[in-house]
Amino acid sequence: MWVKVLTIFPDMLRPMLSESILGRAMTKGLLRVDLIDIRPFSRNKHKNTDDYPFGGGAGMVMLAQPIVDAVEAQEVEGFTGRRIYLSPRGRTFTQQVAGELAGEEQLLLLCGHYEGVDQRALDICGFEELSIGDYILTGGELGALVVIDAVSRLIPGVLGSEESSVDESFSSGLLEYPQYTRPRVYRGLEVPEVLLNGHHKHINDWRRDQALKITRARRPDLLAKDQGSPTDE
Amino acid sequence: MWVKVLTIFPDMLRPMLSESILGRAMTKGLLRVDLIDIRPFSRNKHKNTDDYPFGGGAGMVMLAQPIVDAVEAQEVEGFTGRRIYLSPRGRTFTQQVAGELAGEEQLLLLCGHYEGVDQRALDICGFEELSIGDYILTGGELGALVVIDAVSRLIPGVLGSEESSVDESFSSGLLEYPQYTRPRVYRGLEVPEVLLNGHHKHINDWRRDQALKITRARRPDLLAKDQGSPTDE
Repeated sequence: MWVKVLTIFPDMLRPMLSESILGRAMTKGLLRVDLIDIRPFSRNKHKNTDDYPFGGGAGMVMLAQPIVDAVEAQEVEGFTGRRIYLSPRGRTFTQQVAGELAGEEQLLLLCGHYEGVDQRALDICGFEELSIGDYILTGGELGALVVIDAVSRLIPGVLGSEESSVDESFSSGLLEYPQYTRPRVYRGLEVPEVLLNGHHKHINDWRRDQALKITRARRPDLLAKDQGSPTDE
Repeated sequence: MWVKVLTIFPDMLRPMLSESILGRAMTKGLLRVDLIDIRPFSRNKHKNTDDYPFGGGAGMVMLAQPIVDAVEAQEVEGFTGRRIYLSPRGRTFTQQVAGELAGEEQLLLLCGHYEGVDQRALDICGFEELSIGDYILTGGELGALVVIDAVSRLIPGVLGSEESSVDESFSSGLLEYPQYTRPRVYRGLEVPEVLLNGHHKHINDWRRDQALKITRARRPDLLAKDQGSPTDE
């Protein structure tokens, strides 16, 4: 998958992309992420990328011209993938949307700042809008990183065999059961007996039961969507 | 506000904190963010921070000991603030939760990795769990950054007078209206006439109307929560 991120803060994003699973996915050649600085595309003599909003109000609005030119410059090199603007006005990003985007070969992610982007840039380039949650952030950069992280983990080969994207919250429709690792007793607290006896059916039943309890207590809205009987073998 | 982030990737987070509004909030002394590396707290001779899960299954689980010791080390220096574990199992983070957390003086944010954290670390330290959305990320670092960003913008004095946290999506219960800036005509597309005539009531009515239309089309679930008549002057 080839992802391009249009941003006015490329340096802020770079270190987040080099660590952990994302870095490994890029080293393996399964993922390429280009950070495109919007500012050099500005035809303004001060290389401005924003201006006051028409109609008044607080904050600045990002200019259409540098964004449209930046998008069209990617087109020239054959980059015609889906265009996504990270915005609290967008469709809510979920694990299901991540699965849908993982099937794309190219994604262009636009990070806004201030009070948003001139609507004409979104209209001209055909951006769809995606929101990572019902809260306001300073810019779209964290949203872009969230989308890249969640989506790239679903690309075949990105997670090693020692990892798993099947056994997690949401993929079963339930929140995840509690996990325990060594030592067996820590500060007087023991690992639940059932996890120690090696009886796979009992372990799976216990985990399913715990996942159900946690989901019922914390996110009953998810249970309406969970049709399944225990899916683990 | 004083925030501590417990992570195994402090270097990944640092650049995100220095830019833009967060950096300015820290320069102004309104926000302090300490990045605490969990690894040195491991008493394991290899400084490991994870191990295999009891009961089997893919992935690794973060050890309780380094986390509990790291938390207790902060306590020693008078840091007793709310403890939040970023996790897809958590309560959903929204603008309302951001407003609630903005009233805190101290926040400790724990970033998990792999298949999660030994449940006993969460129990011993009294972590509450918070989720930035219904998707799976590689670790809690992006969640911590999202929380810090959304919360710190609500601390009085962090946003300058030229910015605003009142006029945005969710604060009015509606998604934001379209924005336009110069030029008046860009690639044949004109800024809506109403934004140019300087008639504040007409501008506010148009914006409210646009916000309602966008919200009705994209997020009708939010309208149930919106009781208000136009609140703008």
